[in-house]
Amino acid sequence: MVLAPQLDPTSEVPLYKQLYEQLRAWIESGRLAEGERLPSTRTLAGLLGLNRATVAACYSLLESEGLIHGHVGRGSYVTAQSRAPKRTLDWEAVLGSTAPMAPGPAFPAAHGSVKISFATARPSEELFPVEQVREACQAVLSGPQAASILQLGSPHGYGPLREYLLGEARREGLARAGDDLLITSGCQQALDLVQRAMVRAGDTVLVEDPVYPGVRNLLLRAGARLVGLPVGPQGVELEAFESALEREQPRLVVLTPNFQNPTGATLPTEARREILARAGRAGAVVVENDIYGELRYEGIAAPPLKQIDESGGVVLLRSFSKVTFPGLRVGWVLGPRPLINRVAEYKQLTDLHTDHLSQAVLLRFVESGDFAAHRKRVLAAGAERLAAVLEACGRFLPPGAVFTRPQGGMNLWVRLPAPLDAAELLARAEREGVSYTPGRYFEVSRRQPGGLRLSFGGLDPAQIREGVEALGRVFGSELERVRAVGAMGPAPAMV
Amino acid sequence: MVLAPQLDPTSEVPLYKQLYEQLRAWIESGRLAEGERLPSTRTLAGLLGLNRATVAACYSLLESEGLIHGHVGRGSYVTAQSRAPKRTLDWEAVLGSTAPMAPGPAFPAAHGSVKISFATARPSEELFPVEQVREACQAVLSGPQAASILQLGSPHGYGPLREYLLGEARREGLARAGDDLLITSGCQQALDLVQRAMVRAGDTVLVEDPVYPGVRNLLLRAGARLVGLPVGPQGVELEAFESALEREQPRLVVLTPNFQNPTGATLPTEARREILARAGRAGAVVVENDIYGELRYEGIAAPPLKQIDESGGVVLLRSFSKVTFPGLRVGWVLGPRPLINRVAEYKQLTDLHTDHLSQAVLLRFVESGDFAAHRKRVLAAGAERLAAVLEACGRFLPPGAVFTRPQGGMNLWVRLPAPLDAAELLARAEREGVSYTPGRYFEVSRRQPGGLRLSFGGLDPAQIREGVEALGRVFGSELERVRAVGAMGPAPAMV
Repeated sequence: MVLAPQLDPTSEVPLYKQLYEQLRAWIESGRLAEGERLPSTRTLAGLLGLNRATVAACYSLLESEGLIHGHVGRGSYVTAQSRAPKRTLDWEAVLGSTAPMAPGPAFPAAHGSVKISFATARPSEELFPVEQVREACQAVLSGPQAASILQLGSPHGYGPLREYLLGEARREGLARAGDDLLITSGCQQALDLVQRAMVRAGDTVLVEDPVYPGVRNLLLRAGARLVGLPVGPQGVELEAFESALEREQPRLVVLTPNFQNPTGATLPTEARREILARAGRAGAVVVENDIYGELRYEGIAAPPLKQIDESGGVVLLRSFSKVTFPGLRVGWVLGPRPLINRVAEYKQLTDLHTDHLSQAVLLRFVESGDFAAHRKRVLAAGAERLAAVLEACGRFLPPGAVFTRPQGGMNLWVRLPAPLDAAELLARAEREGVSYTPGRYFEVSRRQPGGLRLSFGGLDPAQIREGVEALGRVFGSELERVRAVGAMGPAPAMV
Repeated sequence: MVLAPQLDPTSEVPLYKQLYEQLRAWIESGRLAEGERLPSTRTLAGLLGLNRATVAACYSLLESEGLIHGHVGRGSYVTAQSRAPKRTLDWEAVLGSTAPMAPGPAFPAAHGSVKISFATARPSEELFPVEQVREACQAVLSGPQAASILQLGSPHGYGPLREYLLGEARREGLARAGDDLLITSGCQQALDLVQRAMVRAGDTVLVEDPVYPGVRNLLLRAGARLVGLPVGPQGVELEAFESALEREQPRLVVLTPNFQNPTGATLPTEARREILARAGRAGAVVVENDIYGELRYEGIAAPPLKQIDESGGVVLLRSFSKVTFPGLRVGWVLGPRPLINRVAEYKQLTDLHTDHLSQAVLLRFVESGDFAAHRKRVLAAGAERLAAVLEACGRFLPPGAVFTRPQGGMNLWVRLPAPLDAAELLARAEREGVSYTPGRYFEVSRRQPGGLRLSFGGLDPAQIREGVEALGRVFGSELERVRAVGAMGPAPAMV
């Protein structure tokens, strides 16, 4: 028996858990056969360079699941085959042989001690108008459309909602003659369908760096070659964009011009025009991911790329998720009809059409006026939360830390002074009850060890203050420690 | 100006409409520039080998949309550029350069004259228990889970529904130790996620022939090499399966053992065991698409492949769609955990998770007992409809026509005697007010010009009788005509 588990000491998943996952998979696949004896905890710890307690924790877990059993003084033996029927098919081998490109690290699972989590960009549940959603459900299922809502529909989406959204898009000057709109299961699916329609293995795609991992991982799995565009406080840096465009001749550029995830940065109007002009000349398609655009709490909105584009090369993605309820998966894609036709083919192949009930309920929620009232509440709450997080960061983060000043959205980007490493400090912060997402989950090619994302949308101002204060203590004490030992790094630079 | 539109005279889309679509796309993309003069209807008809009236109908449509304008005696000119801003990006070129493999013909659009449609496999709207769905909505949005239903969730699905489905799968002996379950947006997405997790371009996949186009087209787009397994009245033919398995060494076999679409055929138990034994030895993964399994109106069910499999190589796909409401998109995939983990990665990348509201509503519908009552009504109605379609086919189809005798599902396969061609006769049937789907929409490699699918699930017995009677007249009169001219073909063979 050769035991060579692949463990990642930098992962947020504890080592004993990683080891357990591998051993369990081997037992279930029959690679570790029934009756086989496992090495002693001491031996395996020595072989793998682990603490013996780590191996012991893993063995306990396997034993508690009945996958191995131990005899005092005789070691541990594999029992699982008696529980799990013998698999003649080795799934790890089957899947391994088709393993696509590694998608980069996943989000860490939050530890049990976390009471205040800045880790996920989601709206606050207390703001959900459950009562009004219930009324909207009642209305659509009492109306003449009820049976057709329960019936199969069009890949383009539920007709009445699609007409409403197209009408709004025309009113806002977003839909051009010859444009069409297709409703998706949220913004993520809009991006997936566009990439399936357009991206082939080896194609070059420009994305922001740092970027939402759902964008990066999806494109990597599709076999795209990603080129990161550095994001500063004013969004994508224009010079980097220009040179990447010339050098890489990308097929696609994916941008989030409003309140970008993770930085919260917004592209100024002039930069938008410049990007459009250059992309248009280069013949590159620009995917405008506008998932956060409606969540502006202050300042003046810059026009959407889709509105000011002259080349016809912009595809706009929007969603109800962030301003209403992400559990109802409804987004949409607006673009030239030839693209939307192709997207509709993939939509039909991937899931026939988007769930009707949620589409009908959201339309009713809009038409009843409840949506406008809800948005008002969400914007008011967002403004308070944004003010609270900015105030708390200014007050509690240690000297040398910098942070972005978004005017909306759900995310803010912090950069800790060197040599602090946000990924390394996460476990300590979580022991203090506070979680965030370290910058490396958003990396394309640029390392920013001090970077981290604070998602403040789901927390109230008191939680935000308490959480940032606790983070300030963790970061500050670490900074004092490293300074005390003379480990002072170079001066920090903004994002 | 070079006008070389690609027209498909065998398509169900009228030629004038095909021509219109192409010219419109060229005008919108700027390939036909503003002010450009179109050829006269006579000239273009001559160039393309079309009837002049066809070209004239196309020009009228373009003019009615303001895309061209005509001057008496001077011809027609492109106007669209004034309405549609100039597109410098040529979307047809952009998409054309990445055009994946042609997916085969799409479903035809039904003509306006159709009153009785056997063309789509969908449940009957009159059976939808709208009232009870409304109650289920009320219940879930009044319960303690309401806010979490509206919040973001897990890629594996809504926890309570997932637990219920896993429990049922264990109870039925479908879930093995080490299996896991993930909820999808219907069965189609379950298939898409499994193929994304497993199939790479060039992989060989065995599918039934004829087969549901959603299976064929999805796999073709993924770059798979499809090998068709002939389907007879007893499902896939075993000898063909055996030799294909040896010859092709497929990565995957996709089967619909119960009430296969389009044939309605069901694999007997012994054939199931044989297929599993052979696939197991060959190390091929079997995807069991069991979308119709619950719709058995008579006879005894054969065990699911997943239940009797010993190799651990079966992945089961199921759905609520056919027995409840396809507008609520909820299906699931059950298989070994390593596969489900990989599927979950793709689920997260494609749309984060399945819509929560529909999942919660369907669970409530099940728990309230309304689902069991609804299923009883659906099965009773299905039995009546099946009896009606079998009786009508026996009575009205012309001599020499053969048809399958399913015991459930929604589809029945008819084979007309040669030289009748179901695709050619469709337009005539539709003029008589009845539609169906010709066999070629389901073809993988075997041509069956006389084949056609009758989907009877959405029609009541009276409509079924009237529809089949009308089809019998159309087919019968054509048969008399060709026999009268001595064009009698060879004797027909069953499927």
